[in-house]
Amino acid sequence: MNFTLNILGTASALPIVNRHPSAQVLDVRGRLFLIDCGEGTQTMMRKMHLSFLKLDRIFLTHLHGDHCFGIFGLLSTMGMLGRTAPLNIYAPEKFSDILKSFIEYFGDGLKYEVVYHPLRMTSPEKVFETRVLEVMAFPLHHRIETFGFLFKEKMPPLNVKKEAIGLYGLSLAEIGALKRGEDVVREDVVLPCAELAYRPYKPRSFAYCSDTAPFPELAEWVHGVDLLYHEATFPAAMSDIAATTFHSTTVQAAECALRAEAGRLVIGHYSSRFPDVGFFLDEARAIFPDTELAQDGMKVDLPLMRQMSL
Amino acid sequence: MNFTLNILGTASALPIVNRHPSAQVLDVRGRLFLIDCGEGTQTMMRKMHLSFLKLDRIFLTHLHGDHCFGIFGLLSTMGMLGRTAPLNIYAPEKFSDILKSFIEYFGDGLKYEVVYHPLRMTSPEKVFETRVLEVMAFPLHHRIETFGFLFKEKMPPLNVKKEAIGLYGLSLAEIGALKRGEDVVREDVVLPCAELAYRPYKPRSFAYCSDTAPFPELAEWVHGVDLLYHEATFPAAMSDIAATTFHSTTVQAAECALRAEAGRLVIGHYSSRFPDVGFFLDEARAIFPDTELAQDGMKVDLPLMRQMSL
Repeated sequence: MNFTLNILGTASALPIVNRHPSAQVLDVRGRLFLIDCGEGTQTMMRKMHLSFLKLDRIFLTHLHGDHCFGIFGLLSTMGMLGRTAPLNIYAPEKFSDILKSFIEYFGDGLKYEVVYHPLRMTSPEKVFETRVLEVMAFPLHHRIETFGFLFKEKMPPLNVKKEAIGLYGLSLAEIGALKRGEDVVREDVVLPCAELAYRPYKPRSFAYCSDTAPFPELAEWVHGVDLLYHEATFPAAMSDIAATTFHSTTVQAAECALRAEAGRLVIGHYSSRFPDVGFFLDEARAIFPDTELAQDGMKVDLPLMRQMSL
Repeated sequence: MNFTLNILGTASALPIVNRHPSAQVLDVRGRLFLIDCGEGTQTMMRKMHLSFLKLDRIFLTHLHGDHCFGIFGLLSTMGMLGRTAPLNIYAPEKFSDILKSFIEYFGDGLKYEVVYHPLRMTSPEKVFETRVLEVMAFPLHHRIETFGFLFKEKMPPLNVKKEAIGLYGLSLAEIGALKRGEDVVREDVVLPCAELAYRPYKPRSFAYCSDTAPFPELAEWVHGVDLLYHEATFPAAMSDIAATTFHSTTVQAAECALRAEAGRLVIGHYSSRFPDVGFFLDEARAIFPDTELAQDGMKVDLPLMRQMSL
């Protein structure tokens, strides 16, 4: 039942030694979702013991090289490793041509189908769901078409407290009613669902917002997220260049987390001008204390919170 | 006056942790020539302190991903770093389309010209030369069109021994004759060029042969090379799979070095089945003792040998 973010790269456009370009893997109960795929992603996946076999879907935010140049090697490697399961890729529309070129020149021997889902929404839309998870995509504000993603566990169905079953001698029909969220109405008494039933855990959520300039709707779209990854390419003093390049500063990332009432914030996508980003953390924490610096190879675990009441 | 081979990657098709895909940089007196460009080449160049600015030309042996997927990130990065000097790329003919696609989708902001030289020779041909160096390309035997490269310093012009100038009172015309390789003929005596002139150094050479099955002409084409890099994807016992995949074994690489009367042999491009390749070295050395194992991050220096006689 884990929900773990793996950070493979924290560089922006120019990778530097020990800072790879953008890629993150969200591990939801053993299924891996890759978000962005900068050069070297396959090597970082091996280093972080993330199985190619468990790679379920790939989400590309935009088609700048530092977010997608690792896709060619990764697709080839999975082919050579004998993957046969279809691979779903969510990416901006232009990726269709890039994928076509790749398959034409390098696709010999790929024994699995690549299912491509073009992103073209102008407000949050569900792009994928399972029994326990849903993934929303939404537009960001960058120099080219760019999308963010929100991964949310679904609200788990209600359970009935074991001790209540014995105490009140609940029938199967009454248990069914409680699981549907209804009170049990007997002749002499009402047994309130709110007292006898509970959610087994609190659903967890993660949002990925990179690359983007700040814009007001973003905090609404990721409101209440447990873990927010927001790019902070530049320190606060460089808001001019951040605006010109459609990126965010530490302060802007932290302000988004604050407005979104996020649980925790992780910042990354650091400009190569700053090999040391310690002061990025100070700037962000002054506004949003629960901030951490993304680092290559870092894992961020969201533990399951047992939630006994409704 | 250095002549140094930098080995960036030693993996074959599947990169493993600490073994990057194929890429080598030959540094000839400060000019850098990149041979193959597997994923992660730009990061390895930074790690090995190889300047992008000094990158003169790129030579791609063939269009399997493990030999070329790093080219996209490298070209982009040089663009972002403000390169304006044209970049010459030598590659098999199909690369033309790949380059066109890359420039179409990711070429915005590239401020330098990429000059593409298609390789299509069936025997060794000179593809580039400077005042001091020439580069030959020749076909290899692989599953797809593949080329090897031979980098040779040119024979340096003759110098006249300083002590001879004073001893014989050599005129400018006589010095000129000696530098052209002619004897000085005076009325009473012949001053032989072979005694008064010398080559200041022995030209150095490096050949890159990967990927290839063995074939008889190869040893002739690289005959006398000082440093031979020859792939050895498989150990001796796996000659069957080597033949099927058009690769070489340790023994076949060593036999090529022996027949070519190479100075030294470096083997690499190891199959991912063998995280430990110590026994590859034993197998090759049994046939060609001056063998070394390529390792990621290794530098092989060919020192200048002063050569006083002709």
